[in-house]
Amino acid sequence: MSRDIRRLQSPSPRASSHEAALFLKTAHDLADLAGTKVLPYFRKSVRIDNKASNGLFDPVTTADTAAERAMRKHLAATLPNHGIVGEEFAELKGTSDYRWVLDPIDGTRAFIMGYPLWGVLVGLLHVDTPILGIMDQPYTRERFWSDGKKSEYRDTTGKVRRLKTRACPDLSHATLASTSPDLFTTPAEKAAFNRVSAKARLTRYGGDCYAYCLLAAGQVDLIVEAGLKAVDIVALIPIIEAAGGYITTWDGKPAINGGRIIASGDAKLHAAALELLASK
Amino acid sequence: MSRDIRRLQSPSPRASSHEAALFLKTAHDLADLAGTKVLPYFRKSVRIDNKASNGLFDPVTTADTAAERAMRKHLAATLPNHGIVGEEFAELKGTSDYRWVLDPIDGTRAFIMGYPLWGVLVGLLHVDTPILGIMDQPYTRERFWSDGKKSEYRDTTGKVRRLKTRACPDLSHATLASTSPDLFTTPAEKAAFNRVSAKARLTRYGGDCYAYCLLAAGQVDLIVEAGLKAVDIVALIPIIEAAGGYITTWDGKPAINGGRIIASGDAKLHAAALELLASK
Repeated sequence: MSRDIRRLQSPSPRASSHEAALFLKTAHDLADLAGTKVLPYFRKSVRIDNKASNGLFDPVTTADTAAERAMRKHLAATLPNHGIVGEEFAELKGTSDYRWVLDPIDGTRAFIMGYPLWGVLVGLLHVDTPILGIMDQPYTRERFWSDGKKSEYRDTTGKVRRLKTRACPDLSHATLASTSPDLFTTPAEKAAFNRVSAKARLTRYGGDCYAYCLLAAGQVDLIVEAGLKAVDIVALIPIIEAAGGYITTWDGKPAINGGRIIASGDAKLHAAALELLASK
Repeated sequence: MSRDIRRLQSPSPRASSHEAALFLKTAHDLADLAGTKVLPYFRKSVRIDNKASNGLFDPVTTADTAAERAMRKHLAATLPNHGIVGEEFAELKGTSDYRWVLDPIDGTRAFIMGYPLWGVLVGLLHVDTPILGIMDQPYTRERFWSDGKKSEYRDTTGKVRRLKTRACPDLSHATLASTSPDLFTTPAEKAAFNRVSAKARLTRYGGDCYAYCLLAAGQVDLIVEAGLKAVDIVALIPIIEAAGGYITTWDGKPAINGGRIIASGDAKLHAAALELLASK
């Protein structure tokens, strides 16, 4: 999704606490719904072909489409004046300042190959501000979410706890996550990432949305990626920020449109990594 | 562990079916035991320092050591004439042709950063032949194992099913897994990996032992890695082979000593990838 999420005219006031509770319940319902649509296609040992291969059975797009359709139907019934930005269908313009940002399967490669690190992403923007986000992993039954005030986690056993990033001011102590070195498509992007990776304590690839949630949980200190879309990132912003973390573009701007993204659990680490990314 | 696993003199006959059942039960008991020792250290949001940082609290080594000690104690009581090769302690020479190969935490980076893709590895060699293997993921409660005749999987809900690799003769259709591009430490290794990766349908990093089990399950078609140790690979060999897959070094030799490893779910794919790795 390369469309920008643009500021609407004349924003309405933020949600009342009653509305906020409805929005959060709706978000959990959407994540539940998407999970039931997507999970039957996970780890089916069929020949899976990617989106480029027209005409062949493609469980990823089938699952993605079914889940997004179900979520849109639920929103139309529950909050009909809200807008919807999703990966599979065209943007639905709402008549309010609220827009849902949906990605039924973030981490398509993980999904295709059977790793349980993909997730259902459900985010809600009020004008340009992410006010709510959920990342759900239906196979492990883990869920990470935020109402914009606090971030929480339900583990594989159903136990819920608060999420909190950890202090790590020094890059040489930081664990760095990135989905793939192949995200960096220009020599400048590759060099910038390598400047950070060379100074970090260790780098691990293969994270997608799961890595951002581990950052909110105080396990991962730093994430550096590029080429992200709005649907990849909006839901994760409240989860990270309400856990005490930072998420921006490489030039320190809001992350809601995706692109080159950096997330950190510590303000000093974020500043140091931004400086390294910007240096030549 | 860089020690080679060398052929002993005068091998004894292979296990009777009674012995084989005892060995498999022992292997499951060892995996259970290791899981209970390791899991309390997983996702503890403390500053975790790697093995190189002497003097600081290191939950990984603490967990590794506790688990390997418990497994060795259990083996001493159950099968006192068997040898033991583990990561944390010196090799124990046995008085039989059986040697257990133990790695309480394969995937240290995944463990440190909170990804549930590390595993407890328990393998058993008869002379130089891996005859049994288990990979257990205690957090998701998944277990993959083989008695050398068939490979099985217990999923997150406790359901058990057979594992079977899938057909994929053509590299251009294959999904390729590798733990990290940083495994390839020489320009020749990097170039060889890149020749394979460039022709594969898609490459995903960040797998460790979990990727080998997904290959046995028919989700991943090909794995290419380097710099592995015997304890990283012995337990996985029966799981892959009894599921119909292939695992060798890059020059087609037995994989039991680690080093440069390739695994495939399809014989034609294995041959094609071996050829590409060997080409200049």
